[in-house]
Amino acid sequence: MRIHLVTPIVTEGIRTLDDVAELNRNGLSITQSLITAGPASIECEFDEAMAVPGIVAEAIAAERSGADAVIIDCMGDPGLKAAREVVSIPVLGPSETAMHLAAMLGHRFSIVTVLDSVVPMIDNLAKLYGMAEKLASIRVIDIPVLDLESDPARLTEELARASLAAVESDGAHSIVLGCTGFLGCADAIGSALAAKGYDLPVVDPIPATVCIAQAIVRAGLRHSKRTYARPQPKTLKGYPYIDF
Amino acid sequence: MRIHLVTPIVTEGIRTLDDVAELNRNGLSITQSLITAGPASIECEFDEAMAVPGIVAEAIAAERSGADAVIIDCMGDPGLKAAREVVSIPVLGPSETAMHLAAMLGHRFSIVTVLDSVVPMIDNLAKLYGMAEKLASIRVIDIPVLDLESDPARLTEELARASLAAVESDGAHSIVLGCTGFLGCADAIGSALAAKGYDLPVVDPIPATVCIAQAIVRAGLRHSKRTYARPQPKTLKGYPYIDF
Amino acid sequence: MRIHLVTPIVTEGIRTLDDVAELNRNGLSITQSLITAGPASIECEFDEAMAVPGIVAEAIAAERSGADAVIIDCMGDPGLKAAREVVSIPVLGPSETAMHLAAMLGHRFSIVTVLDSVVPMIDNLAKLYGMAEKLASIRVIDIPVLDLESDPARLTEELARASLAAVESDGAHSIVLGCTGFLGCADAIGSALAAKGYDLPVVDPIPATVCIAQAIVRAGLRHSKRTYARPQPKTLKGYPYIDF
Amino acid sequence: MRIHLVTPIVTEGIRTLDDVAELNRNGLSITQSLITAGPASIECEFDEAMAVPGIVAEAIAAERSGADAVIIDCMGDPGLKAAREVVSIPVLGPSETAMHLAAMLGHRFSIVTVLDSVVPMIDNLAKLYGMAEKLASIRVIDIPVLDLESDPARLTEELARASLAAVESDGAHSIVLGCTGFLGCADAIGSALAAKGYDLPVVDPIPATVCIAQAIVRAGLRHSKRTYARPQPKTLKGYPYIDF
Amino acid sequence: MRIHLVTPIVTEGIRTLDDVAELNRNGLSITQSLITAGPASIECEFDEAMAVPGIVAEAIAAERSGADAVIIDCMGDPGLKAAREVVSIPVLGPSETAMHLAAMLGHRFSIVTVLDSVVPMIDNLAKLYGMAEKLASIRVIDIPVLDLESDPARLTEELARASLAAVESDGAHSIVLGCTGFLGCADAIGSALAAKGYDLPVVDPIPATVCIAQAIVRAGLRHSKRTYARPQPKTLKGYPYIDF
Amino acid sequence: MRIHLVTPIVTEGIRTLDDVAELNRNGLSITQSLITAGPASIECEFDEAMAVPGIVAEAIAAERSGADAVIIDCMGDPGLKAAREVVSIPVLGPSETAMHLAAMLGHRFSIVTVLDSVVPMIDNLAKLYGMAEKLASIRVIDIPVLDLESDPARLTEELARASLAAVESDGAHSIVLGCTGFLGCADAIGSALAAKGYDLPVVDPIPATVCIAQAIVRAGLRHSKRTYARPQPKTLKGYPYIDF
Repeated sequence: MRIHLVTPIVTEGIRTLDDVAELNRNGLSITQSLITAGPASIECEFDEAMAVPGIVAEAIAAERSGADAVIIDCMGDPGLKAAREVVSIPVLGPSETAMHLAAMLGHRFSIVTVLDSVVPMIDNLAKLYGMAEKLASIRVIDIPVLDLESDPARLTEELARASLAAVESDGAHSIVLGCTGFLGCADAIGSALAAKGYDLPVVDPIPATVCIAQAIVRAGLRHSKRTYARPQPKTLKGYPYIDF
Repeated sequence: MRIHLVTPIVTEGIRTLDDVAELNRNGLSITQSLITAGPASIECEFDEAMAVPGIVAEAIAAERSGADAVIIDCMGDPGLKAAREVVSIPVLGPSETAMHLAAMLGHRFSIVTVLDSVVPMIDNLAKLYGMAEKLASIRVIDIPVLDLESDPARLTEELARASLAAVESDGAHSIVLGCTGFLGCADAIGSALAAKGYDLPVVDPIPATVCIAQAIVRAGLRHSKRTYARPQPKTLKGYPYIDF
Repeated sequence: MRIHLVTPIVTEGIRTLDDVAELNRNGLSITQSLITAGPASIECEFDEAMAVPGIVAEAIAAERSGADAVIIDCMGDPGLKAAREVVSIPVLGPSETAMHLAAMLGHRFSIVTVLDSVVPMIDNLAKLYGMAEKLASIRVIDIPVLDLESDPARLTEELARASLAAVESDGAHSIVLGCTGFLGCADAIGSALAAKGYDLPVVDPIPATVCIAQAIVRAGLRHSKRTYARPQPKTLKGYPYIDF
Repeated sequence: MRIHLVTPIVTEGIRTLDDVAELNRNGLSITQSLITAGPASIECEFDEAMAVPGIVAEAIAAERSGADAVIIDCMGDPGLKAAREVVSIPVLGPSETAMHLAAMLGHRFSIVTVLDSVVPMIDNLAKLYGMAEKLASIRVIDIPVLDLESDPARLTEELARASLAAVESDGAHSIVLGCTGFLGCADAIGSALAAKGYDLPVVDPIPATVCIAQAIVRAGLRHSKRTYARPQPKTLKGYPYIDF
Repeated sequence: MRIHLVTPIVTEGIRTLDDVAELNRNGLSITQSLITAGPASIECEFDEAMAVPGIVAEAIAAERSGADAVIIDCMGDPGLKAAREVVSIPVLGPSETAMHLAAMLGHRFSIVTVLDSVVPMIDNLAKLYGMAEKLASIRVIDIPVLDLESDPARLTEELARASLAAVESDGAHSIVLGCTGFLGCADAIGSALAAKGYDLPVVDPIPATVCIAQAIVRAGLRHSKRTYARPQPKTLKGYPYIDF
Repeated sequence: MRIHLVTPIVTEGIRTLDDVAELNRNGLSITQSLITAGPASIECEFDEAMAVPGIVAEAIAAERSGADAVIIDCMGDPGLKAAREVVSIPVLGPSETAMHLAAMLGHRFSIVTVLDSVVPMIDNLAKLYGMAEKLASIRVIDIPVLDLESDPARLTEELARASLAAVESDGAHSIVLGCTGFLGCADAIGSALAAKGYDLPVVDPIPATVCIAQAIVRAGLRHSKRTYARPQPKTLKGYPYIDF
């Protein structure tokens, strides 16, 4: 089984296959691509919108090259619905997947993310996914995406601090990491919470979404074409890289 | 006061200033543009996504040329949030505006639109706008957008039939026309309903949104920059026509 | 176009046409009347109820004298539904109008009002209008309505303080002034918030509602008679001033 | 214990103590009064509003004369909140009470009422009372209030027909009679449903509310003065019959 | 009339008829039984589940011995739905009953209970009962059930402290005691709140539920057999004490 | 990896490992057990309650014998929360899992189940899981659980008919099989819908839940102990088979 990860930015080096190497097991192969048109990072609605044509192009390419499922590597789930329309394989968003998983794992969950500017986006996704009443709070660490790798110790510390506040003040029973750039931080946060006496799951969205994508493929399920009907052929100007 | 209408398709001749000429009154001037990259018409999530970069470009241009407000001429409100981030003048979506207006005019409203494929999109917008419990139903007439002008009599007849069903079966107390391509049909539908004894408003979204845009400008209001913060400058590849 | 403002109290001098003089522009004429039976001010459900017969009488008189729309000058929207039943012209409540406007201007809004005793009333209106999930919080400044004019500096200061708390603690992205007696305070509050780095709209309900009333009249819209059917003629005792 | 029933209309002979005589048991005494200012019957928002000052006056008189609780004899619960503010004894509305009772008795309930014109009113009450998701439907028999007594057989038949439709088409598991003028019809409707194989409760709102009022008095409970604070003394013009 | 109280634990001496002796008035007789299989106290979902077979057995026995209604003496309402299926007399849960009562008595209510471990249970009940939007908060005093009687002064003090916080920080307008082991504490809490200037009801769930059970019996109402159909006869292993 | 399926009935032969043999792949081993105390089948709340002690016992035994996760083989998810408290491995309910999966696969889903008597149970689960607004409808085929195997052709036909009605009348975009006894019917229903032109997923809950359980184990996730804290040791009478 092969799952293709579309990292919806144009910045080289932010995410590589090395980061997700440990997911290549149990007969699973992961491939990954950046997009060729789009923003350096995703931190607002404008960034998301600029990434979608590139995401759609990569999803089409992934299906043509035989991938079994596509994951859009961003917690804003940009282009999730459009990509589902143009391919027949499952397309997963880590935000949708992680919210549903967290909803199954405990009473309410909080999302810890980067900046104030993405809070309305994530809050709106929770509404669309029917998860609003499961969402205890959204907290931010106030570090821009492109600075996440500059000080790993501070990143973990800020995530642990925000997660602890979510547990103690907002009633969170699970934590969802609210940026795919937080990859690999879940264990440290879980340990920090455990040290305070709180035993609860911390969902790292990309690994969790890879596992759920595998599950959906194995269960023989696909997205509904009642919801995501294939677009009718018609003129499309300005996107030579979209071969649909 | 000048309000700029972005018609988010690349098809010439679907909407022209002639269609909205009667709105040029009360000191109001309307300008209009198509987009240069995007789809022929908007009938699904993919179409919407492909239109957004072009919409954003037109919104920026409209603000630079001195427009007082921008309206995105499509009931999917594509690019509404992204456009609000990149300009400071009000940007209105006819779907959001018409739903709020209809919510103020009666107990519940129904939306009558083109095709099954846009129903989840509109239903999701109602959720995002907090209008889900005001929405009695969404009904479709099953005519594609590019065929709307081919048989005006049939169009009006189908719209009246769907509206009547919404009133009699779904409890609609107001009707919202669910495609901006239905421009000019409201009076005929209202008359058809009145002939059956039902006295209720039919909201034609573009004229209604023009009037509300005027109101917002006159009231000195703008969108919140807490919600729609201006994007930080950073690399953006593949959109030479976006000068931001 | 003429819009009639019904100020639903019997206290002379609280609101005069001078206060709203600046709204008399763009071909708009504003008229105003107090009610002849009712309370000195509106601060609870009892006050509201006592104001409604007088409001209904003024709405009928306004329509007979040729007004194009009626606005009920109180954030409890007293008599809004009853008045809509007895006239055919649009009747607007500043609470309903300002909430829908604020919902369109940003992610969530807070309402800043006078006293604890009106909080349940406003909270209930938000539920009825379908705005509950857009409402971040209701905050009070603890100044009775009839004392609002005694110390304008303190009034503005308390409103700014409560608005700032709504932004910083409750996640408000827009502010709605929750008493029509706060007329004219919006700019000062907006400036106070901007000084703290928060760029967001402050909706002054009466000017905003006047602009929206104009928009509704221009768009040729009226309230649904499915919702607000004209009452059947029958005995009504004790209200000689209601000529219906 | 004495419970006072305020019948909020000015029409003699519609409701008398004879109708509720059987409730005078278990140490309970029922008294009743009409209002002196108000409508002939209550069938819309305007009627309700005109009844409220009279209701408030009767509630004050009832408390002064030693009643232990007040019930407002109309399914629109007119003046419920205002009356609670001006007295300290419990004031019950049959709509609120019957909805909460029905919510406790089965999965979802339907309300069967008189006319289309009261449907939005009752639907809004369900929202305010937090009962919207327990409400399966509202159905009407299309008989005006003042005609209810003219053909008792037809009344029962229409109520049974509407109740059956609520059970079979809307998923109702309990029925609430949606007009206090339906007093005494519950058994016949229950029998008609049982004859079709449906064993479910039919709540007759006035007897049920009398029993709940007794329960509240016996439990030593009163309405919250945080919600229903006593109005501050101030000028009130035009209501000589309200001695508050 | 006889109402039977099922105390769903196996611990002798926690609740006796002496505790509820004052409810034996107005022609009402109260009987009580413990369960023969189950936990020492109820503080989590596992405890609840273990209590249900015993509760069902006692409900069947109560109906056979002529009781008019059954009350399950625990704020988790364990076995409420199962017991309603196997008997025809009303079965009441103090949690459901107290929430609906509190919803009728004021704008929003808070529940003050024992331990963090029961918060999700009570929060879920509020959702099931349709009371989620009436629930201001759930606060805990952090005292296990079996320690409640060890220090009555501390118990009252902690309940008053938590109730005061619910009023001042969470917007509670009524308080519901969230454990039937708090029987008899309502007056002291009400007085403590009144001393701080807050005049609001404190619902003691067992006495309140007894009064409502009486009301339901007097009103001739029973639970809907559409919701709580009698189970079909079939094999049941392992419960010799359930004679159904 | 080993996943243990608890079939929560005492009837031999309804479900055997043969039925789920095809799930034993990808390094996964499935084991299964019936319960020793409980009902013949689960069709109401009483049946569910009687099954829970047995389910808890099997979950404890499964963890002790080294299982990696437990699935409760019934669409009522009986004992789900109690079982999560007493073990540390993940415990999954097919109802919760299938609803979340269906929510991710399309706009709204319908559940097709056995009998009217389970509809309130499933509807309540949807509320608890936050899935109420994703649930288009629940439809029944009116065949008791123990008769499901007697006429496989009729079973498939009735399921296809109910699923088609859900799609055409209720707006379902995905179907969830609402009884684990429907195992193996999904493909036939999907084909029947496809023959009518509807391309949408049909979720067979046990295979789907097995795949998701695998995913959760592989992702290293467990249920939150904030929600499902381990019960404190104390007296438990009447359950000798529960060794906790």
